[in-house]
This record gives sequence, C-alpha cells and structure tokens, in this order.
Amino acid sequence: MIIVLQKGTTPQQAEEFGKQLEKSYNVKVNLWEGVQSSVLGLIGDTTSIDIDAINAQSLVANVQRVQEPYKKANRKFHPDNTVITLDNGTKIGDGSLAIMAGPCSIEGEEQICGIAQSVKDSGAVILRGGAFKPRTSPYSFQGLKGEGLKYMEEAKKRTGLPIVTEIMAAEHLPLFENVDIIQVGARNMQNFELLKELGKIDKPILLKRGLACTIEELLMSAEYIMAGGNERVMFCERGIRTYETYTRNTLDISAIPALKKLSHLPVIIDPSHAAGKAWMVESLSMAAVAAGADGLIIEVHNDPAHALSDGAQSLTPQQFDATAKKLFALKNALNSINE
Amino acid sequence: MIIVLQKGTTPQQAEEFGKQLEKSYNVKVNLWEGVQSSVLGLIGDTTSIDIDAINAQSLVANVQRVQEPYKKANRKFHPDNTVITLDNGTKIGDGSLAIMAGPCSIEGEEQICGIAQSVKDSGAVILRGGAFKPRTSPYSFQGLKGEGLKYMEEAKKRTGLPIVTEIMAAEHLPLFENVDIIQVGARNMQNFELLKELGKIDKPILLKRGLACTIEELLMSAEYIMAGGNERVMFCERGIRTYETYTRNTLDISAIPALKKLSHLPVIIDPSHAAGKAWMVESLSMAAVAAGADGLIIEVHNDPAHALSDGAQSLTPQQFDATAKKLFALKNALNSINE
Amino acid sequence: MIIVLQKGTTPQQAEEFGKQLEKSYNVKVNLWEGVQSSVLGLIGDTTSIDIDAINAQSLVANVQRVQEPYKKANRKFHPDNTVITLDNGTKIGDGSLAIMAGPCSIEGEEQICGIAQSVKDSGAVILRGGAFKPRTSPYSFQGLKGEGLKYMEEAKKRTGLPIVTEIMAAEHLPLFENVDIIQVGARNMQNFELLKELGKIDKPILLKRGLACTIEELLMSAEYIMAGGNERVMFCERGIRTYETYTRNTLDISAIPALKKLSHLPVIIDPSHAAGKAWMVESLSMAAVAAGADGLIIEVHNDPAHALSDGAQSLTPQQFDATAKKLFALKNALNSINE
Amino acid sequence: MIIVLQKGTTPQQAEEFGKQLEKSYNVKVNLWEGVQSSVLGLIGDTTSIDIDAINAQSLVANVQRVQEPYKKANRKFHPDNTVITLDNGTKIGDGSLAIMAGPCSIEGEEQICGIAQSVKDSGAVILRGGAFKPRTSPYSFQGLKGEGLKYMEEAKKRTGLPIVTEIMAAEHLPLFENVDIIQVGARNMQNFELLKELGKIDKPILLKRGLACTIEELLMSAEYIMAGGNERVMFCERGIRTYETYTRNTLDISAIPALKKLSHLPVIIDPSHAAGKAWMVESLSMAAVAAGADGLIIEVHNDPAHALSDGAQSLTPQQFDATAKKLFALKNALNSINE
Repeated sequence: MIIVLQKGTTPQQAEEFGKQLEKSYNVKVNLWEGVQSSVLGLIGDTTSIDIDAINAQSLVANVQRVQEPYKKANRKFHPDNTVITLDNGTKIGDGSLAIMAGPCSIEGEEQICGIAQSVKDSGAVILRGGAFKPRTSPYSFQGLKGEGLKYMEEAKKRTGLPIVTEIMAAEHLPLFENVDIIQVGARNMQNFELLKELGKIDKPILLKRGLACTIEELLMSAEYIMAGGNERVMFCERGIRTYETYTRNTLDISAIPALKKLSHLPVIIDPSHAAGKAWMVESLSMAAVAAGADGLIIEVHNDPAHALSDGAQSLTPQQFDATAKKLFALKNALNSINE
Repeated sequence: MIIVLQKGTTPQQAEEFGKQLEKSYNVKVNLWEGVQSSVLGLIGDTTSIDIDAINAQSLVANVQRVQEPYKKANRKFHPDNTVITLDNGTKIGDGSLAIMAGPCSIEGEEQICGIAQSVKDSGAVILRGGAFKPRTSPYSFQGLKGEGLKYMEEAKKRTGLPIVTEIMAAEHLPLFENVDIIQVGARNMQNFELLKELGKIDKPILLKRGLACTIEELLMSAEYIMAGGNERVMFCERGIRTYETYTRNTLDISAIPALKKLSHLPVIIDPSHAAGKAWMVESLSMAAVAAGADGLIIEVHNDPAHALSDGAQSLTPQQFDATAKKLFALKNALNSINE
Repeated sequence: MIIVLQKGTTPQQAEEFGKQLEKSYNVKVNLWEGVQSSVLGLIGDTTSIDIDAINAQSLVANVQRVQEPYKKANRKFHPDNTVITLDNGTKIGDGSLAIMAGPCSIEGEEQICGIAQSVKDSGAVILRGGAFKPRTSPYSFQGLKGEGLKYMEEAKKRTGLPIVTEIMAAEHLPLFENVDIIQVGARNMQNFELLKELGKIDKPILLKRGLACTIEELLMSAEYIMAGGNERVMFCERGIRTYETYTRNTLDISAIPALKKLSHLPVIIDPSHAAGKAWMVESLSMAAVAAGADGLIIEVHNDPAHALSDGAQSLTPQQFDATAKKLFALKNALNSINE
Repeated sequence: MIIVLQKGTTPQQAEEFGKQLEKSYNVKVNLWEGVQSSVLGLIGDTTSIDIDAINAQSLVANVQRVQEPYKKANRKFHPDNTVITLDNGTKIGDGSLAIMAGPCSIEGEEQICGIAQSVKDSGAVILRGGAFKPRTSPYSFQGLKGEGLKYMEEAKKRTGLPIVTEIMAAEHLPLFENVDIIQVGARNMQNFELLKELGKIDKPILLKRGLACTIEELLMSAEYIMAGGNERVMFCERGIRTYETYTRNTLDISAIPALKKLSHLPVIIDPSHAAGKAWMVESLSMAAVAAGADGLIIEVHNDPAHALSDGAQSLTPQQFDATAKKLFALKNALNSINE
C-alpha cells in the first residue's frame, strides 16, 4: 500500500504517522521524502486495511493498493486451475466445456424431466432449473420452491444429471441436500450473511456477478465463501447493467480473461440472462467459448411461449441441440488451435 | 398493457391470441387492426402479468405497460403523503425536515452516547449507527453486532433519540426489538426473502436504493414490504453507480421529485455515502432539501480519522452542527418560498 | 507521479529506468526501495506525461498521478473565482444567479422575440436559443441555422439580452460574430479540433459536459480552450448517461461542488436536458442553486406542444415566471444563510 | 408509431388530435378506444417524427416507435450483406476475416513501413495508423498529422496494403485523398457536421461507436453518412464506458449479433481500445471472430514500451503473428462449423 501525504506534511508528522500505522496494522512502513510530497510504503499483509480509514486521515492525499485484497481466490497464491469434481465425476475447470442447461423456472415434474433428458441427449452435463425465483414484483410467480426441488431431484434420478439451482435464503439450506451446485443469484452476490453460511457447507457454489458489481467485488464475494472454508466456487458472468437497452444486460466478455488471470477458479457464462433474447444465445455462447470460458449455463424450455418466466430468452430443445453441436465442435477446434 | 403484434399476423391469429390472454390473465382484450401491425390493448389489472412471458410469444413484436406495476406504493391509489410517526412522536413526511445522524459503525458505548448527545443538540431527531456492517471484504471490521445494538439502546435511553440501524439477515430480527427504524442496505434492496420478512413486522423500514437499481425497482421493493402488510416504508437515495469515479457514487437528485410524484412514501437522502467525501456533504444536503427531500441521513463521527469504517465521509460534530444550522435555515426559507 | 515497479525488479533496473525518465521528461526521479516493490517518485511538471506510455513499460506495475493534469483550469493556480463579464455588463460567477432561458430551437423571428421579452420580464439575463441543432436523426429538423441567428440578433436588439447559442463546426464561426456566449454541445465536448479553434477567439464559451465524460475530462476540455488563449470558459452540467431510464439523463448534482473545488470557472446547470420532463425542472433548479451553481440554462417555449424539438422538457413563459420567482427568493435566502 | 393518450381524454379530443397528426406528418391515424385509455396508431413513414414533440402534447401519456428510425442502414430494406471492396480488391463483409493492424500513432517513416511489412506477413490486409490523434490533454502528443499521412502512403506504396486512418475535422479531407478507409473516432460519432461531409465523398468509412452511444444511435450516425449518398460504411465496436474499471472500456460483444441482425453493414471489432491491455487482445479477438465479426482492428507496435500513445494495449509484431495465426485457424474452423 502506497500512501501519498499532503503537500506541507513535515518529516516529523510523516514519521509519526508511519509509526502509528506500524502499530495499528502490524506492517512495516517505509518513508520516502520527495520534494513536493512524502510517500509512505506499507510492507506486510495489508488485505485487512480499510482504504477509507486511511483516506480519512487529514495528512493523506491519496492511497493506492499494490496488493490485491483477496487471497484464497487469488491466482498468485494458487497458480494451478481449480478443478471442481461433482459426485458423479463431472468436472468443471479441467479444460472441458461444461454445459448446464434447463428451464428458468421448474414448472412441473414432467416438464423438468423431459427437458433434462433432452438437454442430456444434446450434451449438457448439468441440469439447471429455478425453484426459488427472485422476481422484481411480489405479484409475479415466485417459483415452486420445495416442490420444485423435489421434481428436480426426480429429474436427476431419471437422467443421472447433477443439478444446479438458486438459493435465496440460508434457512432454505436443508432443502438443498441433494442439490449438486448451489447458485447465488446476481441480486444476492453481496448478501454477505448468505455468503458466510455457504462458506460453512461442502457443496460447490456458482456465484453470479451482481448487475453493477466490479470484477474485484466478485472476487471479494468468492473470498467470503472461501474464507469460511468452502473453496469450491465458480464465477458466473451474466451481463452487467449499462446504459444500453437493446440487450437486457451487457455481457462483459472481458470478464473471462480477467477472472482467469486474477483467479484460479472456473468461469461460467450465462448468455441467456445477458442477452434476454433467444436468438442471441448462440452467438454469445460461441464468443464465450472462444474467449476461454470453462462452461455455459443456458436456458432451455420445451415451450418458451408459455414459460412462466424468462421465456423470451429460452431456446427450444431443438435450438439448444443445434447450438450445442456447434459449441462442442468449436471447443474441439480450439483444443487444436491452442495446443 | 399494449401489445404490438408482428407484421403478417392474421386477424384470426390476433383474435385467438386475444382470447387466450383474456382467459389466462382475467383481463378484457381489445383488438385494433392497423395496416402494418395489429395492436392488442389489455384492460384490467395487469400488474401481475410478466412482460417477458408476453414478449416470448412468437406473434409479439413488443409490449408496453401503461399501468405501473406497483399498487400500494403508488400515489395514484393513495394521493396523500404518508406520514410515519415513531413511538416518541417524531414524524417523517409531514413537511418537517427529519435529520438522522450518527456514526457509520458503532464502536463503543461512550462513542455512540457522546455522538448521540451532540447530534441531538444540533437538531437531529433520529440517531443512526451501524451494528451489522456489510463490508466488501471478509477481512474488514464487520460491526459490533448485538453488542453494538445494546450500546445504541443505551444512547437512546440517555438522549431520547429514536434509533435507525441496518439489518442484514431476517434471523437477526429478534435483536431489533428496541430499534425504531430498520434499515435495508443498498446491497439487500433486492434480497426479496428479507423484504418479505420485513413485510410481516410492525416497524418503519428505511429502504435504501441499490447501487444499480432503477426507481421502478425501488418502488417494487417497497411494494414487496407493503404487500406483506407493513406500509410504513421510507425510500433512501444514496447514490447510484455510474462511470464517474470522482465521487464514490453519483447522487441521483432527480430521484426526489420522481419518487414524490410516483409514490406517497417519504424520501430520505444519504449525502455521505453518495459523495464519499465529507466536504461535499453540506452542498449535497442543501440540494436535497431544496429539491424536496423529507429527511437526510448524515454520518457524524467524533474522530473521523480513527473511524473503523467510512471515516472519509464523516463530519465531525462541529461540522455537523454548522451544516445543520444551514439546513434548518434553508428549510425555513423554503417554507415561505413554497407557500 | 508515483510509479510502482513490478516485484522482482532489481535495484539496477529501477535506477536505470529512473535515469531514462529524467532524460525523457525533464523531471527529477526519486527511488524508494521497498521489500516487495520499488517505487519511483517523479518531481517536476508531469502534466504532459502520458500515463499509458508509462504503463506500457514492462517494469511498471502501476502508475498514479499526484498532480492534476490541468493547469489553467485548476483552482490551485488561480484561487479566485473567474468572473465572466459580457459586453452589456452582465456578470457570471460573481455570486449572482445568472439565468439563461429560451427555446430549444429558434423557430421564427416573432417566436424568439416574444420569448425573449417574456423571459427578460421574469428575470432571465441571457437569451438561449438553438440555430444549429445536433439531432440524432438526419431526418429531424436541423435548425434554422444562419437565419435563426439573425432572428436571435433581432431579439437581442429589441430586448438588450445577450445571447447564447450552440456552434457545431468551426467553419460557422463567422456567423457567430454577434453572439455573446458560444455553446459547445455535449456531443462535441471532445471535438478537440473545434475546441482548439475556440481557444483562438475572444468570446466566452459555455462548455457542456459530454454524456459519458468524467469531471476530469470536462476540465481537460476546458484546458484545451484555455491553452489556446481563451480563458473565459463556463462549465455546464446537463445530466450524464446512466442505466436509469425514468429521466432522460441523470443530473450529476455533485459536479457543482466538485467543479467549484477543482476549478475557478463558473458552473451552470441545465435542468431541462437533464430531466427531459418539464415538471421536474423547478425541483432540479432549486437543488442546483442550493448546491452553489452560478447559473441555470432553462428551456422556455411559448407553445411546448408544438415545439419543433424538445417540447417535452420546455416550460411555458408562465411556468418559467413562477419558477424564476422561487429561484431568486432561494438565492436571496442563501445569501443570508451562507454569510 | 403507437401513442397512448392520457386517461380522461374524450373521444372528440382523441379524434381531433389524430386529424392534426395526419395533417402534420402525412400519415394515416387509427383510433382505438379502450376503457381506460385511447390509443392512436400512426401508419406511414414515421422516421422523421420527433418522439419528443409528440411526448410534449398534453394529451399524450406515452409513445412507442414500431418502425426503426433508420432506413438506409436497415437490413429490412437491404436484406443482403453489404460487401465493401477497396481499390486493390480487398473485400470486407464477404465472409472473410479482414484484419487491420498497425500502430496507434504513426511515429516515423521507418517505423510505419516496418510494422506494415510485418503485419502484412502475418496476414493483415489493411494497415492502420493514427496521424491526427484525439487526445484528452492538449499537452499530449497530437500526432504527426499531414507528415504522418505521407509516411503512411509510403508504407502503402512499399507493401501494397490499403490504409485506414482517423479524420478529426472535415477541412482535413484534402489530405486524405490516398487513404483507403476513413475512420471516424468514438468521440466524433455524433459530430454530425463531420458525418454530413463524409456523406458527400466516395470513400469507405469506419464508424466507431461512441463511448456512451447506443446501438440505435450508432445506426443513426451511419444513416447520416448514408443519407448523404455514401453507403460504404462499416461499424466498429471498441468498448463502451461502464462502471467497471479493470478494463479501459467494456467490449460489448452483443453488438456483433445485434448489428448483423439490424443492419447489412460490416462489423469490425477493436479489441485493443476495448481492453486497454495487450494480454487481453487475443482472447477478445477470438471471441469477436466466434461471434461473427467481419474484421478486427488491432494495435501493433514494434516497441510498445516506447510508443508515443497507447503502448499498454499494443501487441509486438511477434505477439500479433501468433495471435493472427490462431484467428485465421479459428475462422477456418468456423467456416466448417457454420456450414
């Protein structure tokens, strides 16, 4: 951490401030006196230092972190890719392309089992489906909740596909026992109490990026979970909120190389929520795979026009099959190209 | 709700689709056939209709809501301003200027009691203070939690000031029994499970706008609480996230007239979190009062340079006193001007 | 300028790099060797150093400016407020409230002369009106151009009001001889060739902030004009582009205290373009005055419903009169409060 | 165009307003009377109708366009892809991958000629280089201007590569006679006077998307050029401004499928300016090609650490060669996959 002091700070003031920092934060402080300004350099673990608290000091002109504020999620301290292995042996982050597919909302047993079989036939290795649905309006369909999870477990039993679904409150955790991957939705990315609870369990977490959260904040939210002991976290980029209204959100494709460089955790892309338009899903999925994503999570619905939520962005099973074929072909081609 | 159909839709298809909508949503549908496109107009309560579901229909070119999707928070159905009265008789939304002030974090009993007395002397009518702190980093100070609430209750006992503090999880509710106003932080504005729980209790809620949430989404989150039965909700605009980095956030001053027009609920402004700079607080507070805010929530700390959080944006008690004097003088002047 | 070097940089490399910087940029470089990283501090005039060029060096971890990159617009080098005096003696930035008012587009001689008289009667001291109109669509009305300027000059002659109008290309400058203030529109804020030309003339410039330009970029664009010799520049905040769609743009009210602190130039607020809604103009204007704006530029149209552009945000002369009365009353009250 | 009228509008008022619209805009108006609101449907060419003017009418609740406001750029009226052929026969938009490469700034004859030869050897078909540089600071290097263009022409003569370079003012046009593609920079995307001038010439235009411009505004700017008679326009997405600061801008990858669907014009991606980081260029380029881009414009510099501008985002010729090999291999693979 580099602290630039205000012009006019005396050497005595600078030295005294440095000593105070050493005492408060268990760091070593070096003082460099320039002509206009003096600079303090803090050596040691500065992750827990609150930049705002430093900024509030009257002597301080500005502060700059040199060290990233995340540790367990940081590739520097964990150079190899994290590979997440599910109970049935499915791997995420091992260089394969993990496609998660299924409906936005679970609407019934036959619906979810039918879609499960068809996305499995097309190459998906994980079934997605929403039982608890975060909806902007209290008057919209809120999901089948526990009943929906039961249907999803049935689909898992019939097809052998591991399942991923969203949690909205820690007290629902007992219902998630048979779930393979727990999803934290974009609106809960900074629900820190929920993250802490997920840090105590032993299930992989799919952590979706908040609508207006930075890449560093996403890393910090992963750090919350990992700091609790659960290191099996995947990132999911699903579009950020910008001024552009043509798409529902703006897919931040650069998040893929950024997260792969800064962290060792797998990166999944959700083209369906990013675009909000079914016809755009294939193009964005191709881009995500080419940019190095470890997986995709795609909405598929047997009857999008009658879907209870997000029908506009769902592929039909036939569309999904055609898209998946291209995605696997692309992944194969990239394997040769990147060799 | 106005639905424009795709070019090429036949009158038969349009009529059939209209009938289907009437059956599904208990509305009356009018069909207007244009030369290029046909338009359906839905009459009745369309609040619970999911626009995405309509958009997903293959016949649909686009959809437009005419009716706002919120009811209880809507001024149309509740033309008079809602006035919230606290147990000690303090009123918010009655045309007075309600100033809430206090430290970002409660750090100790003497600290909070001292600040409480001093902000009361300067004219604040509610004491703010954070016991549960949502922090980006798991390694930052997370608040004194239950202990902090005890100190705050002591400050309330000594000064008579009602207290407002943030809740981060519904399971902490029992600790909030003596709290007068429960704050929902920006990061939890769309934590719908928490909102539902707050709809079941009988305490005023200060609902902060999410960093990237629209005014309509803020209204919908209030609707979640009100739909549960708790109609004592106040909005709090605290800056939104934009591309500008000079300020911590961008205070959306237009949210004041917008919310006052669309809703009957009181509007509070938080200039401290918006700016992130203590020297800007007075200027933004003056602007907020002039634009018609019902109240302000301002960070005050006895020793900002040693504050455990957000010191950079806290006023000293002396600064707060000077600012409060100006704000009350402005409010008085506005009372004459707007007469 | 503070340059943090990559970990692993040897003292020899650091020293050599420092010498190279001294030679290239005519600065003095101090080297501070930390345990993890070395830091270089550049002393001297670093305004012309391109941060990107430094960042590109393989040894560099990151760079931070200490000195602001603008000089002539910088309050540090010009502590007193700049007061701009027009030919008729009207002053902007002297502590008074300068209201500029008039139609978005000039539509005819009688229209502009009529509005001019009525806004003058209500207290406006400058007449605004658009002759060259930047329109998103090539098929929309583009303004009366030279003819419009003639009508505006006639209105100036009849009422004595100085006039402000927008320029869209440097080659139109000869037409602007009788214009008192030349406006640079938001879309041209970084049309650097135009700014350079305006730096060579001797007329006050009203520089509007670009839709997605930072406060620092606005200061740099003023610097372009001032560097050419024309130091009579006013800033105009007119709303920035954000994700919120309820208002046309989001008025960045914090730009007022920010610009007043960083620069000595006057700050004008345009509530009409910010809101895009006539009913919001009064509330935003009051906020702007309370926050310390030196002036306002407000759209007034005798018949908004038939305006050729931006009618939705125009006040009628009657509405403007009522609003102006309140604004002057507020300004008077503030003069006492801030004494 | 669909106009929803205010509740309470009488049938007589609605009818009269409809007649007035028919007269003003040469359209046919249908009236549909609902229970709560009446709706007017405008049939005919509504491209030139100003939505704001309609919105300003006191009877109007809201307005919605059905027809896109652009014609010449619209795929609906021009279903086939536009293919742009340069003088030497190079084609853009014909299904091949057109790579434009070269330095941000032209720094000297040997520099540009050397880079030209090396990027040609790696497969680039067009040489890019900046002679007129839009720089935020008036104190930064502004480009070699006319002299730079001469060096670029020399590079064209030696290598046979067509050249693309940015124009900043219409009066420089005579200097661009030997330029093959004229680039309009992001900051000039809505410099409408410049666009009009470019509509009068007979050279392909590379139109970069403004930092905060929507896809529709980009289409409208193309329409400005095309309305003037010059229909050889290419779009260039180069990152938009968002709240994220890790990358210089956020590459809006969805702009590729969006623009290809809405328009028939070629789409080029600039990964260098989007990311601002050389190590990210390959990943973003791969994504762009997979998403269907017609070409790329990539910064290549022989010595990025000493580049006079934007060195941080430039590839070395060696890096570019490796990246180009992968891009062409990917393009080949996609040709088979998409067959």
